[in-house]
Amino acid sequence: MSDVLQQLAEILEQRKQAEPDSSYVAKLYAKGLDAILKKVGEEATETVIAAKDGDPEKIVYETADLWFHTLVLLAHQGLSPAHVLQELERRFGLSGLEEKAQRVE
Amino acid sequence: MSDVLQQLAEILEQRKQAEPDSSYVAKLYAKGLDAILKKVGEEATETVIAAKDGDPEKIVYETADLWFHTLVLLAHQGLSPAHVLQELERRFGLSGLEEKAQRVE
Amino acid sequence: MSDVLQQLAEILEQRKQAEPDSSYVAKLYAKGLDAILKKVGEEATETVIAAKDGDPEKIVYETADLWFHTLVLLAHQGLSPAHVLQELERRFGLSGLEEKAQRVE
Amino acid sequence: MSDVLQQLAEILEQRKQAEPDSSYVAKLYAKGLDAILKKVGEEATETVIAAKDGDPEKIVYETADLWFHTLVLLAHQGLSPAHVLQELERRFGLSGLEEKAQRVE
Repeated sequence: MSDVLQQLAEILEQRKQAEPDSSYVAKLYAKGLDAILKKVGEEATETVIAAKDGDPEKIVYETADLWFHTLVLLAHQGLSPAHVLQELERRFGLSGLEEKAQRVE
Repeated sequence: MSDVLQQLAEILEQRKQAEPDSSYVAKLYAKGLDAILKKVGEEATETVIAAKDGDPEKIVYETADLWFHTLVLLAHQGLSPAHVLQELERRFGLSGLEEKAQRVE
Repeated sequence: MSDVLQQLAEILEQRKQAEPDSSYVAKLYAKGLDAILKKVGEEATETVIAAKDGDPEKIVYETADLWFHTLVLLAHQGLSPAHVLQELERRFGLSGLEEKAQRVE
Repeated sequence: MSDVLQQLAEILEQRKQAEPDSSYVAKLYAKGLDAILKKVGEEATETVIAAKDGDPEKIVYETADLWFHTLVLLAHQGLSPAHVLQELERRFGLSGLEEKAQRVE
């Protein structure tokens, strides 16, 4: 289903070199950790609001916003979505052919 | 990197049939939407706290918790992580060989 | 110590008649409930961040922001801080000479 | 309207001396800052949920919970609701006879 997260993580990594004015993410990096965390909190609230409205499209949209800002947080902290997926895999005893590829050193 | 999200979504789908007492997720479904949303808000706050502590392991752990509870929310609303990944893909113009596989009908 | 909350509640009541462009609060009312709730979520996150920084001035500032936006929420819903204080009073068995004045009809 | 906040602040101050097992607040102090902050985030989410339900009683109840846990945070950090009220007063140019009483040294 998804190398989307990995592709996004690579884009977010590249944006670290970009000028603050060049993109939304570059601006967010320049503002620093607190600005990223505020967005995480904000998007979580918006996800809650969308879910209370029971609007599927809005739920998908706000969850995408929330995941995206956690990806920015991970990148800012030198972490990758692979770490998070590996943690989920570990918890739920998921495994399979992709196991080796998912290994995070 | 990840069919982890898809595998998790399938597990979460199966748990809908389970007795409320049989698992954490079955219990959460039984409590209903508000209980799931409280967890989303709670885990977002814990992610913020972990990030302020600058503890990589805790950040990964809490982000996994946050993603997990958004997956429970998606499942509860008849949605799938594929919808969210497709939205992210759309926004960032990601594409490629996997495009067809990612299509959500 | 405080009729500040009551005074603020009265100001917030008056702003309901104001043109959306005339003030921050008038604008927030015009945007509606979701916009107010996003601010509540946002300010809660900022309070958490300030507390993790251990900066007393910032904690006071962000808590003021959080209380303020809950006051806007109360006003928007036809409620008053007196209702909230009465609920706190009830829980903690507080009472005394002011009891009558605090009664909310 | 309210010396409720001041009375509550005094109770919260006294609980600092109490055994962790003796009360909810004493337990929360013993768990430390992060536990208090998690409650602030949680109660903010519950306030949002209550407001989306449009249930006045629940809004009052959850806002009381939210204010209460910010009071615990203030106490834990050696701060008082008077500081927050003074900040609100300053912002909104409120004043009057109570000014002297509200002064925080």
